Amino acid sequence: MPEEAMEDLVADVFARACTSRLVLENVAGKWGILALAALSEGAYRFNALRRRVDGISEKMLAQTLQALERDGLVKRDVQATIPPRVEYSLTTSGQRVATKLIELIELVEGEMPEVRKAQAEYDGSR
Amino acid sequence: MPEEAMEDLVADVFARACTSRLVLENVAGKWGILALAALSEGAYRFNALRRRVDGISEKMLAQTLQALERDGLVKRDVQATIPPRVEYSLTTSGQRVATKLIELIELVEGEMPEVRKAQAEYDGSR
Repeated sequence: MPEEAMEDLVADVFARACTSRLVLENVAGKWGILALAALSEGAYRFNALRRRVDGISEKMLAQTLQALERDGLVKRDVQATIPPRVEYSLTTSGQRVATKLIELIELVEGEMPEVRKAQAEYDGSR
Repeated sequence: MPEEAMEDLVADVFARACTSRLVLENVAGKWGILALAALSEGAYRFNALRRRVDGISEKMLAQTLQALERDGLVKRDVQATIPPRVEYSLTTSGQRVATKLIELIELVEGEMPEVRKAQAEYDGSR
């Protein structure tokens, strides 16, 4: 079996060429993680989501949502109102990923007292 | 209570100024996630870790390890041999974070068949 076919069967994020690494980068990247966690609270319109994900630019949010939509994690619903109402929400896959990301976020938030202590020690010893 | 003091008490990754967001970026960023997951397999010397995290540059791995060491997630042990042997391993905090990251990696790898289907549909409809 050629190596490329093998890679298609077993996803391995450690392998540079595996598409799963790109998906991991989309979901765990700086903005992907926050967009998915926000959408786990419910559907959002673009501007409301932008306010929730404090500090993201319009362009970066559009790119983030497009990548997540392409990966099948976020869906974009356009309602035929005047003006059209566009809402973003999670797919079933997206919900599973978002749940795990929220666990990660909560874990990191819980580690912060220890992290801050470590940072102070590290910075003090230089 | 001034706002900064509040922020110190409650970590909130959605807030642009919260230090927990920076830590989340270190652990969930492209290279942080792979370095932590690799180190959960055991201690690594620099060059062995670089081979494990396929595609990372020497400079980027050094930066990644330094940020994770500062956050108290990775420890750097220098053994007084000739030449000195430098090993990287996880702290207790780092182990907790790495365990959650591996759950995320396994979840994303498991979603890949659905993700690939979604990508093919998305690309076909443009």
